[in-house]
Amino acid sequence: METVKLGILGFGNIGKGTYELLNLNRQKIQRVTGREIYIEKILVRDVNRDRGVAGIEKYLTSNPEDIIKNPEIDIVVEVLSGEKPAADYIYQALENGKHVVTANKAALAANFEKLTAKAEDAGRFLKFEASVAGGIPVLNPLSTVLQANEYVQVKGIVNGTTNYILSQMTENGARYEDVLKKAQTLGFAEADPTADVEGIDAANKLSILISLMFEQYVAPGKIPTKGITGVTLQDIEDAKEKGCVIKLIASAGLVNGKLVYGVKPELIHLSHPLAGVNNEFNAVYVEGNAVGELMFYGRGAGPLPTASAVMGDVMEICKTL
Amino acid sequence: METVKLGILGFGNIGKGTYELLNLNRQKIQRVTGREIYIEKILVRDVNRDRGVAGIEKYLTSNPEDIIKNPEIDIVVEVLSGEKPAADYIYQALENGKHVVTANKAALAANFEKLTAKAEDAGRFLKFEASVAGGIPVLNPLSTVLQANEYVQVKGIVNGTTNYILSQMTENGARYEDVLKKAQTLGFAEADPTADVEGIDAANKLSILISLMFEQYVAPGKIPTKGITGVTLQDIEDAKEKGCVIKLIASAGLVNGKLVYGVKPELIHLSHPLAGVNNEFNAVYVEGNAVGELMFYGRGAGPLPTASAVMGDVMEICKTL
Repeated sequence: METVKLGILGFGNIGKGTYELLNLNRQKIQRVTGREIYIEKILVRDVNRDRGVAGIEKYLTSNPEDIIKNPEIDIVVEVLSGEKPAADYIYQALENGKHVVTANKAALAANFEKLTAKAEDAGRFLKFEASVAGGIPVLNPLSTVLQANEYVQVKGIVNGTTNYILSQMTENGARYEDVLKKAQTLGFAEADPTADVEGIDAANKLSILISLMFEQYVAPGKIPTKGITGVTLQDIEDAKEKGCVIKLIASAGLVNGKLVYGVKPELIHLSHPLAGVNNEFNAVYVEGNAVGELMFYGRGAGPLPTASAVMGDVMEICKTL
Repeated sequence: METVKLGILGFGNIGKGTYELLNLNRQKIQRVTGREIYIEKILVRDVNRDRGVAGIEKYLTSNPEDIIKNPEIDIVVEVLSGEKPAADYIYQALENGKHVVTANKAALAANFEKLTAKAEDAGRFLKFEASVAGGIPVLNPLSTVLQANEYVQVKGIVNGTTNYILSQMTENGARYEDVLKKAQTLGFAEADPTADVEGIDAANKLSILISLMFEQYVAPGKIPTKGITGVTLQDIEDAKEKGCVIKLIASAGLVNGKLVYGVKPELIHLSHPLAGVNNEFNAVYVEGNAVGELMFYGRGAGPLPTASAVMGDVMEICKTL
């Protein structure tokens, strides 16, 4: 059986999840792709830190060129966080003839045109299903099964941290500050929650959705973005009286032929499918001019769900090698 | 721009929807595929019957060989209903070097192994996204984005007619017979509703899902199948008291490593995502060992939603030609 070699940039939650999934479902992955997939190198900042994963040491390097310029590596999996230096690594990996799979919405959204053009230019795949709504299939269906549609609108609950906080405020009447602390303890929110609670993460994902659905690039910084830090228990009570819940919604849609978009807390009527999407779950609601209304629902984050989408992309590439 | 020529077998609701969609979104379809897609021939029983579509006459033929053996045609779209003769047409089209896209679950489910083997043997695509849950992307995501998962279970509301009837009985306390009549008037149920209300249509779809998810073939006739004709208003009241609704569920899952499957009315707790899937909507709930729980939701039938999935498959094939 032919082999395919991966280099992984980053060994945080998603990097570890990818490593774990490759071992967990090794047989299925081989059966479907007809390839044996091996990890060649994993980029970390400190090769001496204990990662809590037996036998991992032999893969670790702190030099990105050991992956990006390694002639042995076929596919680079980029699962760092933040735009820099991840976006440069993706660019250089493509330039060096690697296919790239990324879960990094910040790096991708800020450099979407540059990176997709580079991939096309290099004749290499740049795949990024995991960058929006984690494990939930959204981007691939929009570009395959649903591609005959002119898209009318998208409304997404695409950030699990804020959805968890709003759900707990709604269900238990807990205050924002208290739920945030609980979310941090449970690992649903980061020590610095700014990118989540201010809507920046959702804006990155919306920028990617807009590129695919409406064939135009809107930089995340150009998307009007309001987070949930100002949402009070009184707002939630007022919403309930109107038969609604408050959700952080990333939306884009055509109004009289003009694309309107934004991220902000919105009243969602209880009869709408998005109203029942609670806690760490994500959902993306799409309307196409042929298919009508659709919704994709599931776990939008977490190591294994996100790794599921990363490996799905890796396997699609393997089938072409 | 290169051209791709279609032959369409059947001009009922889905055939008409495909014709309509090809005209409605012609520009988008060309932009995405880089191909001009033309219809060459459409098979109907009676070429003289008025179809209510201006200019359609020139495409019509009553001879299937004008499509299946036509050297001009690249892709055959099979949107007849029932197993025979559709399955033979698919087989012969593949044998004659055509790619085939079908929405016909009865033909596909009863002959899954034979037809997929023929396609592989002939080196041609056989695509069938529209055969399960109409316009909702389900089969493609299961074979691409989610392919790194070992699947644990699937539960589907995959028949709009029965879901409409059960929803109306639940919401309005209407009797089965009365709702069926109303559904027939609205066009949600056929004059002979047997295949829907007895669960046969759902069993066909479940057979296809099992083939893709669990890599084994279970003929639709071997699936224990119970329809909704025996569901009474008392059953629905009893369910409500338990905090549940009754849905016709097509399910399959691994229990102690053994695949268990069936179609039958089931109690679904109101907290389950499937409980809110009402009327003509469909949903497929999937659990994978990496991604966890997912749900795909939308319109499972109707001319344009189903044509959306048919054309998505056609466009995927066009990209490879």
